[in-house]
Amino acid sequence: MNYSTLIDQLVKAFQRLPGVGPRSAQRMVLYFLEKDRDGGRHLAKALAEAVEGVGQCQRCRTLSENPICHICSDPKREQNLLCVVETPADVFAVEQSSSFRGYYFVLMGHLSPIDGKGPDEIGIRELLNLVRKTEITEVILATNPTVEGEATAYYIAEQLKTSDLDDRQLKVSRIAHGIPIGGELEYIDGGTLLHSFAGRQIISDN
Amino acid sequence: MNYSTLIDQLVKAFQRLPGVGPRSAQRMVLYFLEKDRDGGRHLAKALAEAVEGVGQCQRCRTLSENPICHICSDPKREQNLLCVVETPADVFAVEQSSSFRGYYFVLMGHLSPIDGKGPDEIGIRELLNLVRKTEITEVILATNPTVEGEATAYYIAEQLKTSDLDDRQLKVSRIAHGIPIGGELEYIDGGTLLHSFAGRQIISDN
Repeated sequence: MNYSTLIDQLVKAFQRLPGVGPRSAQRMVLYFLEKDRDGGRHLAKALAEAVEGVGQCQRCRTLSENPICHICSDPKREQNLLCVVETPADVFAVEQSSSFRGYYFVLMGHLSPIDGKGPDEIGIRELLNLVRKTEITEVILATNPTVEGEATAYYIAEQLKTSDLDDRQLKVSRIAHGIPIGGELEYIDGGTLLHSFAGRQIISDN
Repeated sequence: MNYSTLIDQLVKAFQRLPGVGPRSAQRMVLYFLEKDRDGGRHLAKALAEAVEGVGQCQRCRTLSENPICHICSDPKREQNLLCVVETPADVFAVEQSSSFRGYYFVLMGHLSPIDGKGPDEIGIRELLNLVRKTEITEVILATNPTVEGEATAYYIAEQLKTSDLDDRQLKVSRIAHGIPIGGELEYIDGGTLLHSFAGRQIISDN
């Protein structure tokens, strides 16, 4: 572009965002400079504050500006349920669906030896400690249905079984995989159909 | 969302961008917080600097951090050509196409009485002064081919004719409108076809 140093720099800074190319970045920059300088100021401030101020919850590892996040510090949630997810975005998604009212544990990724992500990086020790310290009776594994997500779920299930928790009546479950609601069988991939048949549930038995 | 004040605030700040909904905004925020805090810091700084530091070129009115932008201060450009466009984004587009090597004048919009945009707001006086002070012999009107853009082009052409410039051999031209290169006649709208026929050029006359 070579237009103005400040503008070029800002276009490049926006381009770091995933899915934002030179054109969208330019549109964002011109939007703030031509139409909404206050919005630009506000975004710059909010971004600087969040980058410095947001850390991880000491209990569930999700992103939080407080040492303990607002879900972990809510005593009204179901004390005996823990849902293990890969990322904070998964927490958002589950919360928005109101499917679940227990607590979370966020792995911040999945097992991936190639990327140097082993049990320590995804917080297995913290997870076991959390289960130990609390009255949790069921751990719901909600990692993604990808190869890595499945492997991670399997690994966690094994750890929960072989650890010193086996005297406790601890259930470990995996969320169901199958045809999404509104989906049409005709267009569903084979892997999903396989899960869908394997996970079928009896609805009448006479 | 009601997740964390800092995060919610940042998601809302990103949503001010045109075309960015709650989902994309959330993805942007989580990208910076989970994967690229340095990128976030950098964007916050670049944005704050640009919002404070970028003003308008005193000559052509485009966005610039210097009193005179780098195009206006380039003596190697064609001294006698001036291209009138609506926005700084149009300057980018023309520059990238290398279609033009003269100077620009940016209206920062188009005539739109409903939005309170009259001749003063789009800088007609500055435009006439610029033409008066310089050796410009052709003004190319490159406003958009919309109703407002056409009206603006027509108004500027009239002003250039009736002003004290009529003793000068000043040409006023309008960029061509027609079928875009690579376009197929079958899919082109009627308005464009109309312009395309009206603006036809003789290529052989024997």
